Amino acid sequence: MAQLIADRRDVDFVLHEQIGQVDHEIFAEFNKKTVDLIVSEARNLAIKEILPTFKEGDEQGCILENGKVTAPESFKRAWRLFCEGEWLAMCDDPDVGGQGMPKTVGTAALEYMVGANSAFMLYYGMTHGAAKLVEAFGDETQKRLYMKKMFAGVWGGTMLLTEPEAGSDVGALTTTAEKNPDGTYSIKGAKIFISAGEHDLCDNIIHPVLARIPGTPAGTRGISLFLVPKYRVNDDGSLGEFNNVVCTGLEKKMGIHGNATASLSLGDKGPCIGTLLGQENKGMPAMFKMMNEARAFVGLQGFAVASASYMYALDYARTRIQGRHLTAGKDPEAKNVPIIQHPDVKRQLLNMKACTEGMRSLHYYYAWCNDVVHTTDDAQVKADTAAMVEVLTPIVKGYVTDKALEVCSHGVQIYGGYGYISEYPVEQLMRDARIFMIYEGTNGIQAMDLLGRKLSMNGGKAFQYFIDRMKQTIEQFKDTEGVQDLSTKVSHAVSRLEALAKEINARSRSEKVLNAYAFAHPFLEVTGDVTFAWMLLWRAGVAAPKLAKKTGTLDRNAVARTAGKNKDAAFYAGQMETARFFIHTLLPATYGKMDAILDGDPCVEHIQDLSFGSK
Amino acid sequence: MAQLIADRRDVDFVLHEQIGQVDHEIFAEFNKKTVDLIVSEARNLAIKEILPTFKEGDEQGCILENGKVTAPESFKRAWRLFCEGEWLAMCDDPDVGGQGMPKTVGTAALEYMVGANSAFMLYYGMTHGAAKLVEAFGDETQKRLYMKKMFAGVWGGTMLLTEPEAGSDVGALTTTAEKNPDGTYSIKGAKIFISAGEHDLCDNIIHPVLARIPGTPAGTRGISLFLVPKYRVNDDGSLGEFNNVVCTGLEKKMGIHGNATASLSLGDKGPCIGTLLGQENKGMPAMFKMMNEARAFVGLQGFAVASASYMYALDYARTRIQGRHLTAGKDPEAKNVPIIQHPDVKRQLLNMKACTEGMRSLHYYYAWCNDVVHTTDDAQVKADTAAMVEVLTPIVKGYVTDKALEVCSHGVQIYGGYGYISEYPVEQLMRDARIFMIYEGTNGIQAMDLLGRKLSMNGGKAFQYFIDRMKQTIEQFKDTEGVQDLSTKVSHAVSRLEALAKEINARSRSEKVLNAYAFAHPFLEVTGDVTFAWMLLWRAGVAAPKLAKKTGTLDRNAVARTAGKNKDAAFYAGQMETARFFIHTLLPATYGKMDAILDGDPCVEHIQDLSFGSK
Repeated sequence: MAQLIADRRDVDFVLHEQIGQVDHEIFAEFNKKTVDLIVSEARNLAIKEILPTFKEGDEQGCILENGKVTAPESFKRAWRLFCEGEWLAMCDDPDVGGQGMPKTVGTAALEYMVGANSAFMLYYGMTHGAAKLVEAFGDETQKRLYMKKMFAGVWGGTMLLTEPEAGSDVGALTTTAEKNPDGTYSIKGAKIFISAGEHDLCDNIIHPVLARIPGTPAGTRGISLFLVPKYRVNDDGSLGEFNNVVCTGLEKKMGIHGNATASLSLGDKGPCIGTLLGQENKGMPAMFKMMNEARAFVGLQGFAVASASYMYALDYARTRIQGRHLTAGKDPEAKNVPIIQHPDVKRQLLNMKACTEGMRSLHYYYAWCNDVVHTTDDAQVKADTAAMVEVLTPIVKGYVTDKALEVCSHGVQIYGGYGYISEYPVEQLMRDARIFMIYEGTNGIQAMDLLGRKLSMNGGKAFQYFIDRMKQTIEQFKDTEGVQDLSTKVSHAVSRLEALAKEINARSRSEKVLNAYAFAHPFLEVTGDVTFAWMLLWRAGVAAPKLAKKTGTLDRNAVARTAGKNKDAAFYAGQMETARFFIHTLLPATYGKMDAILDGDPCVEHIQDLSFGSK
Repeated sequence: MAQLIADRRDVDFVLHEQIGQVDHEIFAEFNKKTVDLIVSEARNLAIKEILPTFKEGDEQGCILENGKVTAPESFKRAWRLFCEGEWLAMCDDPDVGGQGMPKTVGTAALEYMVGANSAFMLYYGMTHGAAKLVEAFGDETQKRLYMKKMFAGVWGGTMLLTEPEAGSDVGALTTTAEKNPDGTYSIKGAKIFISAGEHDLCDNIIHPVLARIPGTPAGTRGISLFLVPKYRVNDDGSLGEFNNVVCTGLEKKMGIHGNATASLSLGDKGPCIGTLLGQENKGMPAMFKMMNEARAFVGLQGFAVASASYMYALDYARTRIQGRHLTAGKDPEAKNVPIIQHPDVKRQLLNMKACTEGMRSLHYYYAWCNDVVHTTDDAQVKADTAAMVEVLTPIVKGYVTDKALEVCSHGVQIYGGYGYISEYPVEQLMRDARIFMIYEGTNGIQAMDLLGRKLSMNGGKAFQYFIDRMKQTIEQFKDTEGVQDLSTKVSHAVSRLEALAKEINARSRSEKVLNAYAFAHPFLEVTGDVTFAWMLLWRAGVAAPKLAKKTGTLDRNAVARTAGKNKDAAFYAGQMETARFFIHTLLPATYGKMDAILDGDPCVEHIQDLSFGSK
């Protein structure tokens, strides 16, 4: 049977051979056997219960009628099973109702579920993010009333941030919160683009809302965070009156049709009551605290959808028989072959594989870093690793989702005409994937984050730690037979990135600041390229000795001849060839991009508005 | 008012300042005034009549009921006006009912119309292509009965090529044509993915059909071409009986919803009669004769849609006020600015501009070459230019449509969250654009065409002519003030391409043939990059002296200060900065890609099927 959503062998490789899990007593019960069982269960749920909702969710979409939103019918059973399996809080503390899993393992579980239906799992993402806000900033009453029900998925969650005139520029928002005598706040305003903003999967929906208390400072410094339920909650936890959070519209979108992207009006038809979450005017820092998780989840959406597209395209390329082999010449007896044998199709598959596996390693590594931060007692390790998480976040979100669209586009291309029609899943995956480059901070904002905040974080030490960690891997494998040439090349790439980062950071603090930011996205791109090269070198370094053991040789020709027969040898040989593909055939273009950034032609600054075309 | 679909100033620049028109008596009446009038009329029709069908066509789509297909309602009026304006055969000979325009001018007209609604204009594309087949290969009766009605758009046309098991591999088709005693043929078979395959815009639809006469050789050598009308045609040109071409289904697609992508069964429910078009077993060469036009039209679809996306994104970026200027620092008084002032948005717009203008110059130049071939009496010029058309075709189709998707994706990104919803046109443009990389030969096939046929055409002379033509432009501008550095860089790029072409051509004829074809698409990519660099250098070379005349200087800082005030100066300064953007900031990555192709790592050949993932 074809692998669906993700290649289990590769998931296991990253979990047990490359990245591993953090060794700490709180994770003691998650031994290999348990981890494998969890991944199998997640995979089962994803394939048997979530995947069947994929197409229906797209075709049926969400329906708004008389202010009520109906989610796709099939989502209801899937949501119930997802919640019953206690997957929503799988990596959260047992204190709050969680399962306490390492995030590495949680990433594996999420990879399958999100890859099965990213629109469906966005209900999870929004709910989990909102619950974490309550966990982090809620007072005892808020925690008691909301938190566990949200972590259990009985109640959903959202994030009410964007307004028509305030998208990326959050500080411009105008929703107000007037304090009532009882200490609650009356909320009034309108929010748009609210994912999972209104639906019937849960009994209640809890909206964290960014709003302004009148008289507070302009801009982001005057924004507070409020907890606003769809139905008010009585002190015993039972549901009270409707809280006048009204869905005024749903967006018609390119993809993720199964998730309701709602416009909400608050307090327009009657009082809408919220409670302050955290401190007055500290809404933005609170949001930011949750931002890494939210952005990483979007990155994971990109990765999981890309992985699914790769699995479908691979299966199609293996089973679709068309055209003769390139070397068949004019032999009239030559039979048609599966299209995977055509070099251009194979190149595209290799591109999809390299990107998907780079994403997988990066995401699991990111989760591993979070596990370290969560468990370590060593203050220095904690600080360094937390900074590493900060540096990786724009890559994990921005670079990964850029690449995810490319991967999904290759998936469509491999299917040819069939890729463009709705009969096959790759079409929807590409449409779904396009949003990941936009929400939770457009990838342009991710690029500015990397350049403007992360390069100079801790006086540059955070980025240096990232560079040094890459150098460690290079050092580790520089004498490993079969990967010396790859180590040398990645070493060169890392050194160039290190120098370039210093240069563009200095530029961004000079009178050439506009020039620096004109190259922010290209800089994110090259940083991502080098990060993937690092991850793929790491994989090859782990694989090489195992391959040598299986085949008795690392000679490429000999390996190619024997790797087709043994699954393990084939897997490890695949790791080697994938690393070579990325490092030998794609990385050279990265050097060119680095040259261009270094050269820093000022065309973006010089060109005038009017030069773009007459008005 | 914002420019819609295309920047008229830039269209005029290419038509009158860069490429120009072929000077020949048959084009004598197309002086500048007439040309400008034609473009204005085409633009009017596009904006006033075709553009309003854009969204409705997407939302309503085509509906199949009881075997009848209804095109979107609004298409009917637009089609009538398009045909009444005699646009369908604008570049065809007056003998066949055409207007005899130069193709350069026709390209300008089509650019507006296709950019207004590519799904609508696909009815034109299919009809025109089919009419050209009748013109080229029809006997007197076929011409008399079909041709003029098709060129007038009274009857539509299609191309019945693809079958479920024979897409890119045309030779595998199984539709049969049995000769009847009266010399006609009874056609039996099933075709899929037929654009404009069934609809109610025309009284009749004429299907050129590829089929096999029983007993003919296997593969492409046994395929013949037939003319099969939807309704049989009496000898007086009136419509006869239904010819049993039955629409059995319409595809649900990512985009181009307004065009009916039909499955057709021929002769299943009753006799389906066709007449041989051209000679027996010569169906493939006949098809190939029309292929350049068909492929160029797909490339034009990519270009026109990209241009439209650029115009919308530019207008949005100018009017959408969000966020403060990067240099505003912490100034509390700083006002929000239009997002075009944010460097990352400006960089994306410049990317869209560079690609769109590269496409425009390339397409008009391609049309110009066709006009030369059509008019010249010089056999050598004719042969050289015809070969140039052959070399350019895979670039005009493959490279342009790859870039078109990128441009459309930038368009979505610039709109942010709004880009993902159907309220704004950029969402649909991106969905529409995705098919162009697939139909009329996937871009992988375009890449194989460039490498396998075009590099070695006429013993390599065809490609050398292309290289030499680029060198001519470099030579022409090498001493032009303001573009010397650009000339030098493009010269380097062309030399590298020339050497690389020799290398990969030799490789494709060696035992490393699989390796060569693994790099076929990267080679198409770098060839396209260099072609755009050529076109943009040419533009800058034309613009520089005019800019100097307007501003009295070519100093970049001085020009930037003054270009904002004068429309002409701004336009020419924009040409300079756009060329610099592409040549200084994008071309370096091309060198890296060239390095990788030259290096030729054999990963694609070495990796085994099983290494892609367990089955």
